[in-house]
Order: sequence, then structure tokens, then C-alpha cells
Amino acid sequence: MILRTAAPARLIYPEDIAHRVLILGGGFGGLYAALSLRHAKVEVTLVDRRNFHLFQPLLYQVATGSLSPGDICAPLRGILSRQKNTRVLLGEAAGIDPAARRVKLLDAAELGYDSLIVATGSKSSYFGNPEWCEWAPSLKTVEEATAIRHKILYAFEAAERVGDADERRAWLTFAIIGGGPTGVELAGALAEIARQTLKNDFRSIHPQDARIVILDGGSRVLATYPEDLSRHAEAALDRLGVEVRTGVRVVAVSRDGISIQSAGSAPQWQAAKTVLWAGGVQVTTFGKTLAESTRAPTDKHGRIRVMPDLTIPGFPQIYVVGDLAGADDAAGNSLPGVAQVAMQGGAYAARAIVQRLEGAPVLRPFHYFDKGDLAVIGRGSAVARIFGLHLSGLPAWLVWLFVHLMYLVQFQNRVVVFVQWGFQYLTFSRGARLITGKAISDSVTAVDGMKNLSEE
Amino acid sequence: MILRTAAPARLIYPEDIAHRVLILGGGFGGLYAALSLRHAKVEVTLVDRRNFHLFQPLLYQVATGSLSPGDICAPLRGILSRQKNTRVLLGEAAGIDPAARRVKLLDAAELGYDSLIVATGSKSSYFGNPEWCEWAPSLKTVEEATAIRHKILYAFEAAERVGDADERRAWLTFAIIGGGPTGVELAGALAEIARQTLKNDFRSIHPQDARIVILDGGSRVLATYPEDLSRHAEAALDRLGVEVRTGVRVVAVSRDGISIQSAGSAPQWQAAKTVLWAGGVQVTTFGKTLAESTRAPTDKHGRIRVMPDLTIPGFPQIYVVGDLAGADDAAGNSLPGVAQVAMQGGAYAARAIVQRLEGAPVLRPFHYFDKGDLAVIGRGSAVARIFGLHLSGLPAWLVWLFVHLMYLVQFQNRVVVFVQWGFQYLTFSRGARLITGKAISDSVTAVDGMKNLSEE
Repeated sequence: MILRTAAPARLIYPEDIAHRVLILGGGFGGLYAALSLRHAKVEVTLVDRRNFHLFQPLLYQVATGSLSPGDICAPLRGILSRQKNTRVLLGEAAGIDPAARRVKLLDAAELGYDSLIVATGSKSSYFGNPEWCEWAPSLKTVEEATAIRHKILYAFEAAERVGDADERRAWLTFAIIGGGPTGVELAGALAEIARQTLKNDFRSIHPQDARIVILDGGSRVLATYPEDLSRHAEAALDRLGVEVRTGVRVVAVSRDGISIQSAGSAPQWQAAKTVLWAGGVQVTTFGKTLAESTRAPTDKHGRIRVMPDLTIPGFPQIYVVGDLAGADDAAGNSLPGVAQVAMQGGAYAARAIVQRLEGAPVLRPFHYFDKGDLAVIGRGSAVARIFGLHLSGLPAWLVWLFVHLMYLVQFQNRVVVFVQWGFQYLTFSRGARLITGKAISDSVTAVDGMKNLSEE
Repeated sequence: MILRTAAPARLIYPEDIAHRVLILGGGFGGLYAALSLRHAKVEVTLVDRRNFHLFQPLLYQVATGSLSPGDICAPLRGILSRQKNTRVLLGEAAGIDPAARRVKLLDAAELGYDSLIVATGSKSSYFGNPEWCEWAPSLKTVEEATAIRHKILYAFEAAERVGDADERRAWLTFAIIGGGPTGVELAGALAEIARQTLKNDFRSIHPQDARIVILDGGSRVLATYPEDLSRHAEAALDRLGVEVRTGVRVVAVSRDGISIQSAGSAPQWQAAKTVLWAGGVQVTTFGKTLAESTRAPTDKHGRIRVMPDLTIPGFPQIYVVGDLAGADDAAGNSLPGVAQVAMQGGAYAARAIVQRLEGAPVLRPFHYFDKGDLAVIGRGSAVARIFGLHLSGLPAWLVWLFVHLMYLVQFQNRVVVFVQWGFQYLTFSRGARLITGKAISDSVTAVDGMKNLSEE
């Protein structure tokens, strides 16, 4: 497909004039864009509101006390320190003037660009009930992960001290809303904590009695996976003692539990002191601002419908990659919001910028190379669709282990994570079982402090 | 010395009646007391407001991004899970009725005891200026350590973005108040961050230009160490580019810097956006409550003047160990508030309880076996007084490394820490350089959130 850029000539610069590439976001999309520009004759500025890249696929391990935040985060400056054409700025994009080619940061500073790569990702969606986030933290940031860790560990502590049987039951009930990979991974890890890690730690309760429930509105967990893998996952969860309830909709979330509803029946109350949100995502505030400022078309999730080269229609110098980009594959299916899509999108945008600078008039459209899907359920248990193969059990888990260790950005982290996992596998112990923040408080307070962060 | 207990007969129980030992605090004193009771025919309850034991001597490494909190914390339940006579409760002691032998927790629950071991430790003292803690966090809790890490890393980020030369200078000036081991260790690690770790990370500033100043009211750093070791330490700090200013008193601390005063001269302003507090300590609120409730004599630091067997005069079933205990060595010198004293005190109290239960009428008084002192300054640089020997440089550092690895409570942590340190030593990189919490904010806000925790 031949790309029709609005004014391709404008984007070709003589070699001696530095072309300014501004990248917003240091997640998979932004970081891989920056890394792909390391040999390019451009000036790269990467802006993120955090000083680190977060290896999101392992965030559930922080939430469940296996790894420390430091194990799955790498300072952006450290990763890019030797890339001399690149600078990293701590900042948050707040607005854009696409005609003047300037991005405004929250603190009113402005950054000009010749090419812009927007990779600001997504945030959790509570389906129109943002107030639920207070009682049901999601798993998008490091702070939310430590808040979830706090909630889980505190629930067992509270159950140990409570006299009333119903209240103890509520503290030992864990409801996970959403049966996608995050929900399945959280449930599996929670089951391991309850059945193994904490087995001998309490005197008044049996952590093994904890009830762990996954609730999903669809007909099966891992809805985006092939059906046979969903069945494998459900069987594996069942063996771990995790209940799966499909076809139910959450209609209320409060401090003490949730109300759920199946089609055609009345809402039903479920007492649960720990509710975790693994529902959907939505675009960030800056994503909305960008769509408005460029009058870009958006899909029903608010993602920007990009051109085949990932640019915004009418703005061939603005690339959108990762979760914010509403792009389709060859079959016309919307590309999923996963790390692979973001990484490949970031690398594509970098290549496209270089090619245009070199005067290449025709660019191949972005093509997502789908390597597959992986979801881990527990020790030695996972499901994988990889290069067309469907794997489950130990083989899938070994693939998962290999892939995740290889992708962890920093070599140092890779070794530390490997050591942590090795010990954990042998001993069932979890090294990072800390309740930080104000430990003695209703779990409410702990999550409350996170509100600002989870909401963007 | 023969111990005169008020009523020794009352403390002797028949073997079949469980003797309840309540331990307040899971630091070095409380944890070692609990571990020493593992084979005793008693029922042990350990209460701590955190769910983990903190290996305080390495906390400065969390504050300077070398280690993650999880690396130096071990869940108390995990350490004690196989000790069947012991239970762990998350709770905070708020009051005591020594006549009824009951401790009240913050949430109004009460715990009875037959023997009580109070090991609630100390908190930072701002010498009558508690409001300074907002601008100058100290290094007592995990949250303060991550707040300090935030402040340090954010200072470089802010300096990178600031245009004004004076303001940049203020962001790159780090004032450490207090020249004891904590101050020296923080300064050494900060120098390494500025001179090595961040060397290539910035484009507008040279982190090497950072000015690091230790301010102390005395005449030398490490005042409790032999004089030759203080001189060695000052020379080592000088080689790292750390300024040491002795004989100065801090008279004001604010958002932008500090006012300092030498004897006989006017106060002098020092702009410094990062001020870290490594001053003295004071007893906790519960320590004061205990002293009031038992009418115990206290020393000028508020510590309880204990009997030679570490009990409170008139209350032979209440032991005080660690930082809260005002005990003297054989020469009449007050014992320092270090881990060794707390550990030995905790183990002594445990032994004393068992011996009394066994009907031993005469107890040997607590004798502190002083193994020495250790302070690390930087890579391959430390000072040590160990079994009478004075060491400095690499030999002292190797001793430090060995001692700290051996004492880290959990085997898993020990290996992970070793791997982290190994990489760091070879690469100068630091794995846990995260700015968590709200990253983009004046450093003020971040520390502000910590106020509750640092003030008890």
C-alpha cells in the first residue's frame, strides 16, 4: 500500500540540520522507539512522568510479593545513558499545538519537535465507575502493585485477629474482577500464597481456607486466546482452588464486597474485603487531548484511528504507537494492547522517521508480527499460543519463563529475578512480602492514597 | 552481682501452665528475644506495627538505590512460622497497665502477659524542631528510605531542567546533618551516585559537580569511634569529594536549604534542596508511656534506667531491651543504641525468663559483649574497630561485607543482596533507582506524605 502523506517534502531535512524527535512515554512503545533511533542522525528527547521503564508483564509478581519493584523497573536514564543523541526528561505532557509542533508539559514548559512519537499508553477503565478504584485497585503502576500487596497481606493479618466468623470469611475472600491474563495471573499467584507461602504463618486461621474467585462478564477466561487454552486455564485454576464465575457483571463495589449480576437475575451480594480490578483499559487524558487537538478519529475505546504508517491523518509527523493507537491487522481485527504491539510500533515509527529523512518517498505500512500469547497460572503451569502452536502446563510455563527473563531489559535485573524465582520455586517462600505505607490502617486508607496515580 | 527481684517466687510457674511472654517490637531486640525462646515452654506473642523485620544497618542502601526494600526486610511471620510456640500479631502498643499485666493496642484490643519484653526502639530526634522532618527526612523506616531515594534522584532530574545557575547549584547541593555512621554512609553512597552511577545519564548537568556536605556539631565524624578511625574516615570522604564541616550547629531547615552556625559567629545560609537528617534519636511514644506507667527512672535521652537484669525497677517481669533501655557497661558508660546491644539484650531477656521459670534464684546481670564498630564509606572503603583491632580501607570493608551478609536474616535475601552488590561493584550501576509515589512534584510533597510515619 502506498502511503499518501499530506506533504512528504516538508519532512525531508538536509543531513546537517538536526531533526528533533520527541517521544512521549517510556513504556514499551516509547523505549523501543528511542532505542531504534540510536544510530539515527536525529536529536531524541524522551519524556516520561516516571524516571523508569516498567516491565509491566511481571507487575503481578510485585503485587503478590514475589519480586520487588526495583526488580522489574529499569531507570530510563540508565538504559539510554550511552545513547548520545538521546536525552531523558522527567515530565508529563499536558497539551499539544500540532500546527506549531509544540508539546506543553504540566509545568508549562514547552518542547518543540520535528517528529513526534506518542506512546502514552492506557489507564485502567472502571466502566464508568471511577469511584470503584478506591476499593478495587487495578494493576497499572508500581504504586498500585504495592497497594495490592498491602491489601492481600493485610487481609490475612486482619483475619488472624478477627473474632467474628463472618467477618473472618470476608477477609479471606478475594474477588478478582476480569478473567484476562492479568486476572488469571493474579488469581494463580494468590492461590499459591494462600495454599503454600503462608501455610505455617498463622495460628488462628488457615490461609488455605482463603476463597479466590475470578468474575468475568464473558463466557470464558482468556477470551482473546483460543478456546482450548481457555479450557486448559480453567482446569488449572480449578486445581489451584480458584473459582471461576463467567457471565456475571459487577454492579457495585464497596469497602466490604461487591454486587454481581447474571443475565436475567437479581444482583447478588458477595462479601469480600479484597477486590482486585483486572478489567479493561482506556486511553489516558493526554490521549484524549491529542485526539481533540488533531481532530483525529477515535474508536469506541477512545484509541486514535491511525493511518497504515501509524501517523494521525493529516499529521504525518505525529506517530501514535502502543495502547493509544487504534490499528488493525491485515484481517481487519483491532490490534491488542500488548507489549509486543507497542514494541513493534515504536520500532516501526523510528524506522519510518529515518527513512523519510533519507528521502524514501514510499513507506511500507506497519505490519504486526504476532508471535503469540502467554499467560502464566502458577508453578509450572501456563498456557501459550506461540507461532501457531497451542501449549499448556509445564512446556508453556518454560516458554513463559524463558521469554520473560530474556525481555527483562537490564542484565542485572535478569540475574536477580532469576535468583529470586529459583529460591521461590524451591521453597515456596516470597521475598518481598512487605506491608509498606501505614501498615495498621484499614486497607481502605492505603489504596486511597493511590487514587491520584491510578487515575492517569 | 546478685539480683534483688521484688518477688521472685511469683514468677515461678509449674511446668504445665503456659507462661505468656509478650514481646513488643520485631526489631533486633524483639526478634532475637523471640528466636531465643524457640525451645522454651512458654507461649510467645510478638507484636509489631509492621509485618516485617527491617535490617536497619543496610537501610542507607535502599535510600541510595542499591537495594530494594524487599532485600533488607524479612516477614516476621516467615522467620517465625516454624516456631510453634510463637504467634505474630500486627498491632501497635498504645498503653500498659503494669499492675494488671496488660498491654493495650491502638485498636483497643488488650493482651495479657506473664513476662513482657519491650523492644520498641527509637525514633529520630530533631532536637526540639519536629517540623524540620518535613524538609529533612531521616533514615529510620523503609518509607523514609524511599522518600530519601526520591529526593536524591529528583534533585538531579530537577537540576537537569532548571535554567538558572543558582537554582541548579541548590539542586546539586546535598547537606547531610550528622556525622555518625549513618551520615558517613549516606555521604559515601551519594558521592558514588554522583561521581559514578549517574556519570553519563544527563545532558545539561554534570552529576559529578554535586556538592555533598556533612555537617556535625562535634569536632570529628564518627565521634564514638577511636580518633584514628575518624581521621581515616575523613580522609576517605575527602577522596570521594565529600566536604566535612565540624563544630557547626544547624539553626534552621527549610525547603531551600539550611542555616548553620559556628560557635561565636552569625548564622550562615546554605542553599541546598536536599537535606538529609542523620542526627540523634529519641525514645518512642510508647517508651514514654511505659516510663510514666511504671514510674521508671529515665536518662537525659528519655531511655528507661533498667536494673542490671534489664528489668524496670519494681517490675521484675518487664524487660526493656535495645534503644529504649538505658543500661551501662562495666565501666559505667551508657551502652550505644546499636543492633548488637539490642540482639544481646533480647537474647538475655529470653534466657532470664526461662531461668526464672526453672526456679533459678540468682541471675547474672546483663553483660554486653562489644564486638566492635563498623562504618562503610564507599567501594572498598570502611573503618572498623573489631576485637580491639583498628582497621580501615579494604580490610575493614571486607569485614563489613562479611558481617552484613552473615547477619541478613533470610538466606534468600543474602544471595540476592550478594548478586546485587556483585553487579554493582563491577558496573557502578544501581538497580533500584526508582522515583516512586508521585514522581513529578516538588520533593516537598513526597516527604510530606511521610510525616506521620517518621514521627512515630
